Amino acid sequence: MDERVFLESILTPQALSPQILIGRGDDAAVVRYGDRSVVFTTDSFIEGRHFDFRYFSPQEVGAKAVEAAASDIVAMGARPQYVLWSLVLGGSRPETDLEFYRALAQGVEGACGRISASLIGGNLAKGLGTLELTMTVIGELQGKRAPCLRSGARAGDLVCVTGQLGASSAGLRAYQKGVAGFDESKRLHRTPRCRLDVVDKIGAHATSMIDVTDGLSSELHYLSAESKVRIEVDEARFPIHPEAKRFAAEQNFSPLELIYAGGEDYELLFTLPEEKARLVPATIIGRVLAGEGVFAKDIGGGVRAVERSGYDHLKS
Amino acid sequence: MDERVFLESILTPQALSPQILIGRGDDAAVVRYGDRSVVFTTDSFIEGRHFDFRYFSPQEVGAKAVEAAASDIVAMGARPQYVLWSLVLGGSRPETDLEFYRALAQGVEGACGRISASLIGGNLAKGLGTLELTMTVIGELQGKRAPCLRSGARAGDLVCVTGQLGASSAGLRAYQKGVAGFDESKRLHRTPRCRLDVVDKIGAHATSMIDVTDGLSSELHYLSAESKVRIEVDEARFPIHPEAKRFAAEQNFSPLELIYAGGEDYELLFTLPEEKARLVPATIIGRVLAGEGVFAKDIGGGVRAVERSGYDHLKS
Repeated sequence: MDERVFLESILTPQALSPQILIGRGDDAAVVRYGDRSVVFTTDSFIEGRHFDFRYFSPQEVGAKAVEAAASDIVAMGARPQYVLWSLVLGGSRPETDLEFYRALAQGVEGACGRISASLIGGNLAKGLGTLELTMTVIGELQGKRAPCLRSGARAGDLVCVTGQLGASSAGLRAYQKGVAGFDESKRLHRTPRCRLDVVDKIGAHATSMIDVTDGLSSELHYLSAESKVRIEVDEARFPIHPEAKRFAAEQNFSPLELIYAGGEDYELLFTLPEEKARLVPATIIGRVLAGEGVFAKDIGGGVRAVERSGYDHLKS
Repeated sequence: MDERVFLESILTPQALSPQILIGRGDDAAVVRYGDRSVVFTTDSFIEGRHFDFRYFSPQEVGAKAVEAAASDIVAMGARPQYVLWSLVLGGSRPETDLEFYRALAQGVEGACGRISASLIGGNLAKGLGTLELTMTVIGELQGKRAPCLRSGARAGDLVCVTGQLGASSAGLRAYQKGVAGFDESKRLHRTPRCRLDVVDKIGAHATSMIDVTDGLSSELHYLSAESKVRIEVDEARFPIHPEAKRFAAEQNFSPLELIYAGGEDYELLFTLPEEKARLVPATIIGRVLAGEGVFAKDIGGGVRAVERSGYDHLKS
């Protein structure tokens, strides 16, 4: 079952107060304080589910937990400012291994520094499972800017994505299968960075936005469903990372699988009016049309439905 | 090892920006947005550590997670407004048991309603341990009021506590030992409520404040150490819950053990100038003096040091 469906089926619909600009269901919530728009998100990062100390150093785990949570703030077009860190100890690392926990903390602090956010609080508990970091990131929209929601795409907009896709997923699969090489993919899997560097440019023009966490198919479906539009992508235009292409070729599967289902690229997927496309540093991969659903033009020119195949938060 | 000592030993001291009124180390962090003072806290609530489904209904678990986290906002003299809920599935409850998770969510939503806070977001993940709820609560200080810190107690102040102490701990021990009766203690353990009802009155006058989470000895030591003062309490004045007294008598131990080491009362421990004492609904239990350490007058009139014996976040 999908995260969103699960949450909708257990929670009661809620009337929002006027101060709550955006409540549940987008990348982050947005609340007004006077003329300031403050953005909140929380994200859990769990040993054995989201990372593995066979591949990750403790610094890398701490930093990735911050970058992944901050990416939800960036996906609203906002800048992260403050971080709260809830650490649940567990697994095989006793609390007396201060060297290990110092390295983990250095990773958290280092990433906070990189994104210009302050670590202002947290919590410590001992759990009965594996190590966990839950990061709450608080950001702010600049000036009077509106948040970039999943629901703002309009027929006629272009669909764009930043950077290159697929490397993080290729790196993870290379680790899991014990495949040597693919060092840049492995590095990108361990040390992703949220796209704070381009958020101001893109946030000024995007009509809808989401970060690529769970895989491109999942994110395209979110934009399509929330904006109530049809999205058609041109697979030939996908900015596939060269190592992801090479990994897929060597392993005999389509690189599209890494793009659609792979995730953890933390790139920004967004829509914007065609005349704004030259203003943003991104690749045009498709178009928004009236209707519903996500479709892909394949290389032969045919059009087929793209099924949702991204990361399942509830998969065992 | 103590939570605070552990965190201080792994984190790097940090220079705070002028917008950060209070960073790490108090009950919650405080940040300025224009002339608004916004208060942040996060707290994890873990099956098998903090609650047990042998005693708790899922609604009670959801509600207690909210009340416990909100209590940290109240302890700053602020009112909770928004809640983010990170749910890590685990233990023996499969995600298909929607009735169970709906009850858990109803508990979260019910407590949010009671404290007039809105549930504005969250996260869902599947863990490898037991069920966990990490609640982030965001509150605000009213008007131009300063936050009630742990560090503001001054020599000459009185030490006060709201409500009655010891029942939550008596209820937990009664459950653990299979002792029948003590129904009010058991109920108070399962369904505590943060003291939002008195926060405005107390917040207006308190010079320092903390909520009683880990046990009175631990909280007295926090106030003493952070305020750099000596605290002397009069044990004869402790507002011990009648069931806690009776439980301790029947089990042949001192009720003071439930007060000093018990915790989870979520009452407010605070200091204030003597002339303000009649303005607050609380019991005077001691006095602030110049010096350091926590001391108790016993019934014979002697004075002895109170050792720190509260809940240890890192105890196995």
